[in-house]
Amino acid sequence: MNDHLYAVVMAGGVGTRLWPRSRIATPKQFLDLLGPRTLLQETVDRIEPLIPFQRVLVVAGTGYTAEVQAQMPDLPAENIIAEPGPRGTAPCIGLAAMILGQRDPAALMAAFPADHRIADAAGFRQAIAAAAQIAQEGYLVTLGITPRQPHTGYGYIQRGAALGQKGGLPAFEVRRFVEKPDEATARQFVASGEYYWNAGIFIWQVKRILAEIERLLPQLHAGLQAIGQAWHSPRRLAVLEKSWEQMPQTTIDYGIMERTTGVAVLPVEIGWDDVGNWATLSALLEADEAGNVVCGSGHPLLLDTAGTYLYTSAGRLVAAIGLKDFVVVDTPDALLICPKERAQAVRQVVERLQEEGLQEHL
Amino acid sequence: MNDHLYAVVMAGGVGTRLWPRSRIATPKQFLDLLGPRTLLQETVDRIEPLIPFQRVLVVAGTGYTAEVQAQMPDLPAENIIAEPGPRGTAPCIGLAAMILGQRDPAALMAAFPADHRIADAAGFRQAIAAAAQIAQEGYLVTLGITPRQPHTGYGYIQRGAALGQKGGLPAFEVRRFVEKPDEATARQFVASGEYYWNAGIFIWQVKRILAEIERLLPQLHAGLQAIGQAWHSPRRLAVLEKSWEQMPQTTIDYGIMERTTGVAVLPVEIGWDDVGNWATLSALLEADEAGNVVCGSGHPLLLDTAGTYLYTSAGRLVAAIGLKDFVVVDTPDALLICPKERAQAVRQVVERLQEEGLQEHL
Repeated sequence: MNDHLYAVVMAGGVGTRLWPRSRIATPKQFLDLLGPRTLLQETVDRIEPLIPFQRVLVVAGTGYTAEVQAQMPDLPAENIIAEPGPRGTAPCIGLAAMILGQRDPAALMAAFPADHRIADAAGFRQAIAAAAQIAQEGYLVTLGITPRQPHTGYGYIQRGAALGQKGGLPAFEVRRFVEKPDEATARQFVASGEYYWNAGIFIWQVKRILAEIERLLPQLHAGLQAIGQAWHSPRRLAVLEKSWEQMPQTTIDYGIMERTTGVAVLPVEIGWDDVGNWATLSALLEADEAGNVVCGSGHPLLLDTAGTYLYTSAGRLVAAIGLKDFVVVDTPDALLICPKERAQAVRQVVERLQEEGLQEHL
Repeated sequence: MNDHLYAVVMAGGVGTRLWPRSRIATPKQFLDLLGPRTLLQETVDRIEPLIPFQRVLVVAGTGYTAEVQAQMPDLPAENIIAEPGPRGTAPCIGLAAMILGQRDPAALMAAFPADHRIADAAGFRQAIAAAAQIAQEGYLVTLGITPRQPHTGYGYIQRGAALGQKGGLPAFEVRRFVEKPDEATARQFVASGEYYWNAGIFIWQVKRILAEIERLLPQLHAGLQAIGQAWHSPRRLAVLEKSWEQMPQTTIDYGIMERTTGVAVLPVEIGWDDVGNWATLSALLEADEAGNVVCGSGHPLLLDTAGTYLYTSAGRLVAAIGLKDFVVVDTPDALLICPKERAQAVRQVVERLQEEGLQEHL
């Protein structure tokens, strides 16, 4: 174990495609979508054998820090970082790096989202430990998920020269990052064996990422400097909020990773999934013999129904007849019904709710 | 107008196939399924220009008389007849006939269900008035609905010899009543032009139907005699309940109409429908350009959805994506989702609820 290794859990997602369970008040990462623990709890549980609570930071929107603390009572309060607003992963990671750099100038940080599923927790920890070794050499490291199909919803990472084994895993330099490809391109990527899904999991020295931010995102760096100077003063909140408004809105991928060198990828097969929509969520859960996945605390009643994901709320009876490959999510105030193949379109529902000003259902 | 003509509205139905709106506490006839008025209200509204409230009897289960009175405050309280339990239409009609016979020995009664839709109310009243003329001659008269398709869910009436015009309408003797036929038989019936749907709408002299009951259902007649003797005494309720338990459970069709002569049919085209299930109900309502029918007081949100019936409850948002020809009925405690072609199977849901003892959703 490396006492300088910190985890930064990014809990600022919104999970629009998992509406109506994922809401403004309770986004995806705060929900028990895959079992009794929430995605955030599972994320911290997963890393905790490698990185104890004392070195786990959770970054969440200002309105969510109480929920984070409630879900993780053992996490030190000062490790919960309130982000004044969502401005992409670059300011989020920059803020965490600044805070860690003040605590421990030799810090290594592993940053990852709070709302992903990783079936092989031990494999994940092994990969993070190996990545930390590479990062110690100065690399910006990313985990590359060996693609299971030509998915067009993810960015890809092309590997370059081999860097040899690190912590028992083969590592590579990164040749390039590629935005979400079309179907044909994705097929070529998968067939080549040289491409990995970009899961947004990064490991690096705090001093290296701060240097990259200073070089490539100087406006962000200036803001972080101002925040850092005020961090241990009564002006912390005022400076944070003022600086945050002026932050460039960008992701760490666009802002840094695609524009620099000295980047390594560690290919992994760890049962990763981004729990992107109701159909992909359903595929992660155990189905009955008819292929139905039934969740929630209400009363389901299925007749001639197969391949269907059904969530019910307490006190509600949901009767489904003749459904094939559907998603039905029945919450106390809002209901979603759609074929699994249309699960991505849930985002459009949320957009319509926003347009129509139906705040109470968002 | 005939001052001896009375209406008997039979409001004892359960409407299982319209669950989850139709419930034990509020069966189909008490619901505003087709517009702002309930089916029961529409039924009384429809006959009222021909038969005023003073001569309209409503027969409903003991637990529903308060609802009948609430829905029709102008109906004299003594015209609401409480049936101790559902025992088929024969005891129900017999009870009404006994009560009317005491009021007016020369009474004619028109008996019909409270839960049907008749688009042409004026045509209906004309038919009832014409049927009353035939009934005055001693016939048991039934309205025969000119079939629109070879429906296998209705009984049929075959006509016999012509009886000439009555009140501007051609009438016929009835050759026979036929139970629900198979598809091929139904096709022959419709092609022949000699068959009509049996809508359960009957018109006759009270003295004639009581004589038929005495001859063909003597046990029922004995019970009615006992009830009649106690009707204007403090023992009314006790005798009614005791006699009712011993009543034969049968319909007026099985018990009388299929077993006697002197029966006439008056063919009509009055836009009749039994509002049998959610799919047939939907077909009676105005659809938008996508063929969707949206009812209720909640908030519907339809994307790429067509041919679908959607009912929403206050405060609930229902988002449907990619539905084609579905039924979605979302009540505060229970939800139904099924393709329209499976609308008949809703009965199975109710059976399952009964088996599982889920009384609160019945």
